[in-house]
Amino acid sequence: MKQSQLFTKTRKTAPKDEVAKNAQLLIRAGYIHKEMAGVYSFLPLGLRVLENINRVVREEMNAIGGQELLMSVLQSKELWEKTGRWSDDVVDNWFKTKLKNGAEAGLGFTQEEPITNIMQDYIGSYNDLPKLAYHIQWKYRNEERAKSGIMRGREFLMKDLYSFASSQEEHERLYESVAAAYVRIFARLGIGDRTYRTFASGGVFAKYSHEFQCLSPIGEDTIYVSASKKIAINKEVMQPDVLADLGVDES
Amino acid sequence: MKQSQLFTKTRKTAPKDEVAKNAQLLIRAGYIHKEMAGVYSFLPLGLRVLENINRVVREEMNAIGGQELLMSVLQSKELWEKTGRWSDDVVDNWFKTKLKNGAEAGLGFTQEEPITNIMQDYIGSYNDLPKLAYHIQWKYRNEERAKSGIMRGREFLMKDLYSFASSQEEHERLYESVAAAYVRIFARLGIGDRTYRTFASGGVFAKYSHEFQCLSPIGEDTIYVSASKKIAINKEVMQPDVLADLGVDES
Repeated sequence: MKQSQLFTKTRKTAPKDEVAKNAQLLIRAGYIHKEMAGVYSFLPLGLRVLENINRVVREEMNAIGGQELLMSVLQSKELWEKTGRWSDDVVDNWFKTKLKNGAEAGLGFTQEEPITNIMQDYIGSYNDLPKLAYHIQWKYRNEERAKSGIMRGREFLMKDLYSFASSQEEHERLYESVAAAYVRIFARLGIGDRTYRTFASGGVFAKYSHEFQCLSPIGEDTIYVSASKKIAINKEVMQPDVLADLGVDES
Repeated sequence: MKQSQLFTKTRKTAPKDEVAKNAQLLIRAGYIHKEMAGVYSFLPLGLRVLENINRVVREEMNAIGGQELLMSVLQSKELWEKTGRWSDDVVDNWFKTKLKNGAEAGLGFTQEEPITNIMQDYIGSYNDLPKLAYHIQWKYRNEERAKSGIMRGREFLMKDLYSFASSQEEHERLYESVAAAYVRIFARLGIGDRTYRTFASGGVFAKYSHEFQCLSPIGEDTIYVSASKKIAINKEVMQPDVLADLGVDES
């Protein structure tokens, strides 16, 4: 299709209530349209970019043996009650809705519960392991404020991969194969040189949690970078014992 | 990927509460997983079929000048109040939810309101017309009963195309070009010989509404087929004047 046929045009202004620079520019360029705070429609050019990113992600996930599926947005209350994550006191950003019969349903903010429920139908023994399953699905998170444009929306597209392993060793091998695939994705998307595996608090699950974070003048976290080790430490855990643990010094 | 690596397997049974034959078979074959009545996750094989169908639909929509975008699921109450379609008394199958600040939002069951709102930013004169825009997006419809498997779900994937024309003649030309594209889609999907353009009541909008319906022993509508004209008439409007109107006789 010729660009002259495209229904979008560049615009001189973005909506007055749009405070995020990323969304202001993408709206002015005709890539996205703001539906409400934290909710955007993707216009033809924006959708094309999104699909290009999806393609790179799919290729790298498939290359490590990831199997793509697509889990539903609507979530059953019963499934999430089993793990204690239905309550708004435990998960503070559920969007919930009601069926005609009065039963409640949620909008997926993540999919650990449904993927585990699905896998229970198919994993009968350790012979069925390991398995890597992923989907690229819109997530719904009821953020108190949504002022970061497409960087932190109430409705946003996320690739989430879930691994099922028969031993801790197998789990760790899978984990690192996925991390290496993420590094290849960031490189292919042109942000590899500014993206670091960061160590933050692991909460109740582990000593540390890992995130891949991209250096940017805007954002919510402060991180300290070790360029030589290609890792970073979140300010919240920046302590001498953590530095020693990770084999980096403060200089 | 080899089939032996696939995480799904065929199963001898489907969930007892699944009454739809289509869903029973697709569950047993490992194509879909039932999350709740009318809500299914698409497992790797099912997703592959879905994507193959999407590809055919996209090719035919693009061939007639359709421009693909992706409108959000979350819908602003204000936008739908303008057209009088927010009220549950007018639209009886909304799923609604609440933002943290107490404001209501809906889950899109169709997207006429948002596409028209978007187009208002870009269509300045008749020189900008005609335009055809479409998306392939999950729809949310709060069905009283959901007993038809993937044929009539509470969460289901739909291609919806919207046309914007500068005259009635242009509108009708676009309309027929889209109808012809649908005929090509049904032929490519292998259901062309059993699919008819059916005439039913047009309600408040028009004398007739058109649907493409596929002959099947199950379903909700009864239609009378004119094989020679490749059209059908819904039982609800099967009257002598309609027959005369469409140039078919009862024999």
